[in-house]
Amino acid sequence: MKALVLTEQLTFRPDYPDPVPTDGEALIRVRLAGICNTDLEIVRGYKGFHGVLGHEFVGDVVAAPAAEWVGQRVVGEINITCGTCYYCTHGMPTHCEHRSALGIFGHDGAFAEYLTLPVQNLHLVPASLPDEVAVFTEPLAAALEIREQIHLRPTDYVAVVGDGKLGLLVAQVLHLTGADVTVIGHHPQRLELVQRWGMRGIYLSSDRDGGVSLPSPHGKADVVVDCTGTPEGFATARALVRPRGTFVVKSTYHGTLNVDMTSLVVDEVQVIGSRCGPFAPALRLLEEGRIDVVSLIETEFPLEQGVEAFTYAQGRLKVLLRP
Amino acid sequence: MKALVLTEQLTFRPDYPDPVPTDGEALIRVRLAGICNTDLEIVRGYKGFHGVLGHEFVGDVVAAPAAEWVGQRVVGEINITCGTCYYCTHGMPTHCEHRSALGIFGHDGAFAEYLTLPVQNLHLVPASLPDEVAVFTEPLAAALEIREQIHLRPTDYVAVVGDGKLGLLVAQVLHLTGADVTVIGHHPQRLELVQRWGMRGIYLSSDRDGGVSLPSPHGKADVVVDCTGTPEGFATARALVRPRGTFVVKSTYHGTLNVDMTSLVVDEVQVIGSRCGPFAPALRLLEEGRIDVVSLIETEFPLEQGVEAFTYAQGRLKVLLRP
Repeated sequence: MKALVLTEQLTFRPDYPDPVPTDGEALIRVRLAGICNTDLEIVRGYKGFHGVLGHEFVGDVVAAPAAEWVGQRVVGEINITCGTCYYCTHGMPTHCEHRSALGIFGHDGAFAEYLTLPVQNLHLVPASLPDEVAVFTEPLAAALEIREQIHLRPTDYVAVVGDGKLGLLVAQVLHLTGADVTVIGHHPQRLELVQRWGMRGIYLSSDRDGGVSLPSPHGKADVVVDCTGTPEGFATARALVRPRGTFVVKSTYHGTLNVDMTSLVVDEVQVIGSRCGPFAPALRLLEEGRIDVVSLIETEFPLEQGVEAFTYAQGRLKVLLRP
Repeated sequence: MKALVLTEQLTFRPDYPDPVPTDGEALIRVRLAGICNTDLEIVRGYKGFHGVLGHEFVGDVVAAPAAEWVGQRVVGEINITCGTCYYCTHGMPTHCEHRSALGIFGHDGAFAEYLTLPVQNLHLVPASLPDEVAVFTEPLAAALEIREQIHLRPTDYVAVVGDGKLGLLVAQVLHLTGADVTVIGHHPQRLELVQRWGMRGIYLSSDRDGGVSLPSPHGKADVVVDCTGTPEGFATARALVRPRGTFVVKSTYHGTLNVDMTSLVVDEVQVIGSRCGPFAPALRLLEEGRIDVVSLIETEFPLEQGVEAFTYAQGRLKVLLRP
């Protein structure tokens, strides 16, 4: 099959072996896939993964242990779990001790004609959702994870730092709550989009990192989410958290960060790491048209031009790949 | 008056000017004071404070705006607050934007014959409490702050990393909840004390940092508190936090720490900074005899030998100063 494969470097392969489903797995023909910043990080060496990249997809089941799945259009949760460890048996399967993750580690991914996933990972896509919308289920679920973790109040001032793909999804799911949401970013056009959605956008030129204040009683935010993945973004975000505020860290970073832990102690800040989230409400919110994902699509490439697509995707909104 | 004063270095001064109470302040004659690790840090340059050190004390009110305070034996909260800023008017006075802190910044402290504090900071000491017990009210309140911040379950495995003064208080207040508490430290004698209190003590030689496992279903802890103040201790503590666990950071650190923020994101760990806490329950628990502080007393020095006391206090349990 055709596949975009990472070994020492990323290459398009016209002749990669078809994946073979194991017990309990479905074979899925990929209709459309999306490039995530994590993919760009993996190409730079994060996770040391070799294999087919890609974990955001929508596809058709072509073979499955139970016949009712065959022919269904699906999206899939990316963590392949053991079902028996402490985390699997305590409602935390995304933290399974023996997990692999689609296109991230231990399991070939979605930038290919076919992929395999356990049937239990699959979710039916409502007929009304175009592929271009359904392909956002996984990143939208990741944004929703924040809403599973913390309580947002209508009185809260919320700041999302970073106006990339993830930041714009996070801002929308936090805005659902009725909180006062500000997005801080480097891209005027994206901040206009944010304003069209009814939120505040604050443009930050690269040399002004750290110097933001909000129209809140304390000039800071009650809840800040860092979606930048950069040390500078982390610093800007941290500076916005009020004492006793909540600082959600949604990004992964190259290497370690230098953190002023003493100031987090003195300010009694709560820092929360946030990763994969729930697919069912993501699909429902997409079906209800409550999240605008179409505006986040930058362009689409055929899988054959996947390497060019990766170069193009750098610093851009969502780039889709069609096998 | 006699006072232990920090300028370029720490010196005992027999002739330091008596403090003059401002509006709303009481004048207090110090009966007994305690040396905290923060004091040792301040002498090393943390906070850049110059003045009389010391914030743990018990004393007698000798002058006050309201006559009923005069002659009372008191302990005092250390944050001197404005009463009008956002934090003061929203139940977070310890985060007052205009605060000073007794013996830490902006206000002379307790290693002296006299100190001043606003009357609203004072708490009466029950007659049954000896000075040697009452002097622990402030650090015990700081330990209790964790209990104001997070919910501990009887099913939780809790690890306290660090068997210093603060660690041993923190362990006791977490043990009150009925959770399974382990203290990890470098001092066999203190770990024996921990076991006498009914908790688990794990001895960690300095070259084994990081290599601890607990008899929990996951080998890690649901809640970890770092009371070490060192980068090595932070790393040991971090390694013990299970995915989706809670990591309370109770220490201040020299400079910044190198933190693997990506692993906190992947494990969805919740990190919570924790500082000053509530005096009223600290006094009540001491009165009820539910916290053993007497075992934490290392020795007592007269204030005149305060400089020697600071040298002696390094790495030791509580050293008291008597003016």
